[in-house]
Amino acid sequence: MNIPQTSYPRVLIIGGGFAGLAVARGLENQELQVVLIDKHNYHTFQPLLYQVATGGLEPDSIAFPLRKRFNDVENFYFRLAEVLKVDPETCNVETTIGSLNYDILVMATGSKTNFFGIQNIEKYSMEMKSVPQALNIRSLILENFEEALLESDLEKRRALMNFVIVGGGPTGVELAGALAEMKKGILPKDYPDLDIRQMKINLIQSGNNLLAGMSKKASKKAEDFLKKLGVDVWKDLRVLDYDGGTVITNGEDNFRAETVIWAAGVKGACIEGISVDSIDVKSNRIGVDEFSKVLGHENIYAVGDVACMKNDKFKKGHPMMAQPAIQQGKLLANNIISDLRGELQKSFVYIDKGSMATIGRNKAVVDLPKLKFQGVFAWFVWMFVHLFSLIGFRNKVIVFMNWVYNYIRFDRETRLIIRPFKRKNKYSFDKQNV
Amino acid sequence: MNIPQTSYPRVLIIGGGFAGLAVARGLENQELQVVLIDKHNYHTFQPLLYQVATGGLEPDSIAFPLRKRFNDVENFYFRLAEVLKVDPETCNVETTIGSLNYDILVMATGSKTNFFGIQNIEKYSMEMKSVPQALNIRSLILENFEEALLESDLEKRRALMNFVIVGGGPTGVELAGALAEMKKGILPKDYPDLDIRQMKINLIQSGNNLLAGMSKKASKKAEDFLKKLGVDVWKDLRVLDYDGGTVITNGEDNFRAETVIWAAGVKGACIEGISVDSIDVKSNRIGVDEFSKVLGHENIYAVGDVACMKNDKFKKGHPMMAQPAIQQGKLLANNIISDLRGELQKSFVYIDKGSMATIGRNKAVVDLPKLKFQGVFAWFVWMFVHLFSLIGFRNKVIVFMNWVYNYIRFDRETRLIIRPFKRKNKYSFDKQNV
Repeated sequence: MNIPQTSYPRVLIIGGGFAGLAVARGLENQELQVVLIDKHNYHTFQPLLYQVATGGLEPDSIAFPLRKRFNDVENFYFRLAEVLKVDPETCNVETTIGSLNYDILVMATGSKTNFFGIQNIEKYSMEMKSVPQALNIRSLILENFEEALLESDLEKRRALMNFVIVGGGPTGVELAGALAEMKKGILPKDYPDLDIRQMKINLIQSGNNLLAGMSKKASKKAEDFLKKLGVDVWKDLRVLDYDGGTVITNGEDNFRAETVIWAAGVKGACIEGISVDSIDVKSNRIGVDEFSKVLGHENIYAVGDVACMKNDKFKKGHPMMAQPAIQQGKLLANNIISDLRGELQKSFVYIDKGSMATIGRNKAVVDLPKLKFQGVFAWFVWMFVHLFSLIGFRNKVIVFMNWVYNYIRFDRETRLIIRPFKRKNKYSFDKQNV
Repeated sequence: MNIPQTSYPRVLIIGGGFAGLAVARGLENQELQVVLIDKHNYHTFQPLLYQVATGGLEPDSIAFPLRKRFNDVENFYFRLAEVLKVDPETCNVETTIGSLNYDILVMATGSKTNFFGIQNIEKYSMEMKSVPQALNIRSLILENFEEALLESDLEKRRALMNFVIVGGGPTGVELAGALAEMKKGILPKDYPDLDIRQMKINLIQSGNNLLAGMSKKASKKAEDFLKKLGVDVWKDLRVLDYDGGTVITNGEDNFRAETVIWAAGVKGACIEGISVDSIDVKSNRIGVDEFSKVLGHENIYAVGDVACMKNDKFKKGHPMMAQPAIQQGKLLANNIISDLRGELQKSFVYIDKGSMATIGRNKAVVDLPKLKFQGVFAWFVWMFVHLFSLIGFRNKVIVFMNWVYNYIRFDRETRLIIRPFKRKNKYSFDKQNV
């Protein structure tokens, strides 16, 4: 990998998401060599992927080049690669571009879509964890509409205009809301020949509440907002199978749909070589102690979605969201530095800053620790928190300008089919190349 | 294609570039049915593709959704398709989504890269005529740098950092300038481990002048600017072959390079079925009379790059650029309306508004009919003309903001490898999917 061996200890961080980035930033300009490996050359701001998928933002606006972030940092190395295997015995990782030894390994590999072992769904449904995947969804939505225009069979046309989103978490809710806004303001103008009433947006939630991690009030209000926007919300319904044509559920209702977006769950993105004993079977997350140290390993840490830090309050580990990842990453960096100086490490205590979701124009729900509110003000809060959290001044300005424009004009203009998806080979190459 | 047959004559326009768009806009809300077919669902502002390729702009900023442009227009139909064949006998076109008859056919199919029959070059070099192609170039540049980092063989590393741009027209000059700015301000920061002196930007021109269509003064100054930026300009040199590793020329100098960008020429993008007699063998453009009517056909017109309208002043037809395309498109629309009303059609007279090219920060050359100037002021003129020409208010604002940011910060931040190109399968899928 062509990284010099120095007298400084080498901290190898796998993954440039929220957690990995927080660790790397926290270790800047210390007496350490920091190596960051990611399969993309950019950090993805996942909370806004749904806006790329629905034509509200351009891809580069929500991503940030990882190299740029560390331009001025000494002893920092970035490598574009996928990690294939960890060998804790020899303190070595194997990657697509060679192997590298480490003194301290930080697993910040995040999460991947959990299809719960249903191979058909993995094959035929869309996921939205990366920029290319979001662009694939954008392409598919628009390509389906182009195809619907040509379809004389009413059933087939309806299937092309039928969108099934599985999973009522923030991703599913925000995507359903954004699609509903496209249905309202944009698609009828773009496709005046289509009967837009045939477009259906179905949001399917296996449990009894949308946004299960938030308050009852937020959940209820989000459902109201979605219904007002014309989304069909299905609760207590479970998707069992999808063959590319029909969604089979455990209820009376099956859905004939060309587009299924699977946002029903995530699981830890583990890497081969980590002690199997430390991995939680169900969530595929790596068990860690209160210092983020992987159970059963001495110099391997895990932070963010992939880490499962159980305690009395979080019996299944912390929620797989940005905030725990950032907080764990920051603390781990400090702890590594403390350790280096012979000082004591600090235990992780999660500070819940609240959570929020947007459903559409002027419609959001916000749960703060001491205050819960919904509606227009919540929407503005959502916007500014997300703007503020984006990395990079350019991104902030460009996203802000796009939002102002979209708000004033009731529009979402970035409707390019950049990665033609369906027409070429729906289920092969492009799903890999993500 | 599911387009209703009405009592209005049907004008079928193939291609939503500058020419096709001008025709379609000129025919808005007339007693005509207008059908526009394009293989992309967006109009591409080709003059700024090089900025997408070099990380200065995001893809959606220089493109505009075609459907949106005609949202409020009666009797307008857009279809996303490729036209395979024209049958002038039956007034019918065959496309990838079915066939359609026409009363008036407008060929606005533009141009494609001319490889002058050199199959190796077609296979191994990059072209830049579309947004996906520009993103492929962006990916390749960055992927080559990532690879160079790992390469211990000096010759191979140099080849990865050696960029050969063939063709000294505006595309080649602007791309070479932008690459040189990346070399200066961005790549050394992103890749501090690489010796940036090993990065070479070679601009190869077969003739004696860069920007051959412009004044001697502009040509000279552009060359000076490029040299000042560190570009190696090769004149009177012709590229004969490229096997993916070495560029063979007709001179003493061959180049070992992993990246060859072919901007050495374009040819008309004809469609099968147009009378072969009317097609100019060398340029592959369709011969038209002064009303843009295709020679040998009654109700077929051609405008823009694909049209070859010869007269005393333009013995080989008009230059293949935006201005003649827009002017021909506008006039053709007016002529079609005049014809409908029984009025006389007007002959085309090209009004040369001048031409310009930018080389880099504060460096541009402008030839106006009565005034030629170069440098900072030319650069501002270039910027405002291009901003003004972009379609869409959002695009104008977003491009302007990006330019202000890039100018102040000496940066180009959109350095995402969105379409991983090289690592996956360099010469297969992604080159098709453009």
